Amino acid sequence: MQPTTRRNFLKTAGGVTLGIAVMSGMTGILSSCASKENREVAAWPWPYQQLDAEDVRKRGHLGYYEGACSYGAFHAVVAALRDKVGEPYNMVPTDMMRYGEGGLVGWGSLCGGLNGACAAINLVAGEDYKKLVHELVGWYVSTPIPSDISNNYAKNHEFLVDEYKTDIVLPQSVSDSTLCHVSVTKWCEASGYASGSSERSERCGRFTGDVAAKAVELLNQHAAGTFTPVFALPEDTEQCRTCHSKGKGFEKGQFTRGKENCVDCHGEPHKGG
Amino acid sequence: MQPTTRRNFLKTAGGVTLGIAVMSGMTGILSSCASKENREVAAWPWPYQQLDAEDVRKRGHLGYYEGACSYGAFHAVVAALRDKVGEPYNMVPTDMMRYGEGGLVGWGSLCGGLNGACAAINLVAGEDYKKLVHELVGWYVSTPIPSDISNNYAKNHEFLVDEYKTDIVLPQSVSDSTLCHVSVTKWCEASGYASGSSERSERCGRFTGDVAAKAVELLNQHAAGTFTPVFALPEDTEQCRTCHSKGKGFEKGQFTRGKENCVDCHGEPHKGG
Repeated sequence: MQPTTRRNFLKTAGGVTLGIAVMSGMTGILSSCASKENREVAAWPWPYQQLDAEDVRKRGHLGYYEGACSYGAFHAVVAALRDKVGEPYNMVPTDMMRYGEGGLVGWGSLCGGLNGACAAINLVAGEDYKKLVHELVGWYVSTPIPSDISNNYAKNHEFLVDEYKTDIVLPQSVSDSTLCHVSVTKWCEASGYASGSSERSERCGRFTGDVAAKAVELLNQHAAGTFTPVFALPEDTEQCRTCHSKGKGFEKGQFTRGKENCVDCHGEPHKGG
Repeated sequence: MQPTTRRNFLKTAGGVTLGIAVMSGMTGILSSCASKENREVAAWPWPYQQLDAEDVRKRGHLGYYEGACSYGAFHAVVAALRDKVGEPYNMVPTDMMRYGEGGLVGWGSLCGGLNGACAAINLVAGEDYKKLVHELVGWYVSTPIPSDISNNYAKNHEFLVDEYKTDIVLPQSVSDSTLCHVSVTKWCEASGYASGSSERSERCGRFTGDVAAKAVELLNQHAAGTFTPVFALPEDTEQCRTCHSKGKGFEKGQFTRGKENCVDCHGEPHKGG
């Protein structure tokens, strides 16, 4: 009996051919509604039209109150596209991104707002998601949040919630990390608010709007052909990565990968070889 | 002029009412194919049927070769459900989860395989995603990978790829972290392989299958009503969390949140209050 190779698998998969996601014409729109048996897969990427980043910022803030950070950021972009583009944006239940909340249901891993915003970028930017997601992550780790814009919306009651956890102007901090745990801790230390406080929660709500708005800003630039990356890794991270990065030289130190701040966990760098 | 509250926003949103995702009957299936104008949103969660975890493990490994870890794990579950359930699983382009690769396009943050598998759980498990995702994450941080099953599939050429990066039995390690950076580094240290080696890549391919299979195991239990959580946080993490966790007491140490291993980054715990 032959081993089951990929080729054999596809050959024997009957009428259903996996991995073929390309539909002719009508980009991204299922044309197969006549029959439930039709297994054509929604094409990727989905069609994009320029969005209003401030509208999306407000949707993100509201979405945080509805379903936390990861859903909030994803829903903000997708629901805005439902309103502007229509199908196929009604086909994905934005609730599917709820799990990112609190860095994976409270584990404190990857910031959920960032996770949800990256998923939205990936859905619409095609292969260019790589450079846009990299830029969004770079913005996230290096930008004081919540933004002045979000702080002003809250102060002036311009957000879409009926009742604010707090409407005060909140202190800002820079996470220097993609992690919920690090981002929340640094903000709490900078602000003096506890992690279970209403202020910390509202801070994450404002940030959910901020990251969704930033994603839309990048997507708008991408759609207009004006996207130019501006983020560069900090010099000390690049210094560590001259040895400690993805590569084939184990002895050289290439037994790791990543672009996060090194010093936060590893302390000050060693000197010399 | 009144402030734009959520209520006003919904009132003035015209024919399109955001946030209403419930469809009558036909759970999860868009019944609105007659008109492109229909904006009903795919209901959540999507319908699940028991899957073969070994089939999904092989799909996950193959998916890694097609689109890396995050896509690989998400696609493995969703494509298996396309074959078994049909619609609505053709409506989501699984490429949308590619961004998780290498912990966000190579940043080394949240393990992409874990990210993609969690998204699949969230899509089908409804509100119970919380306990299933928590269990999957607990399994991830505490289990030696790649699994013996995947190592044997590779050795016997039972995976679906045409050409293996390596078919040797690979060393195993436990990540004790959700992060790509930590997981890869620990495995490289345990195995002696560099992070840019074919062996490390194949290790991640096998793990992509393993985490998709574990997600399906949990979803099968959930669908059968037999799911019982088994993961418990390690004692030393719980010890730290008696003070340093999400809560309202800043002075007590509640200026942080998360469930990861504390010692890896913070060193040995301090004693006493």
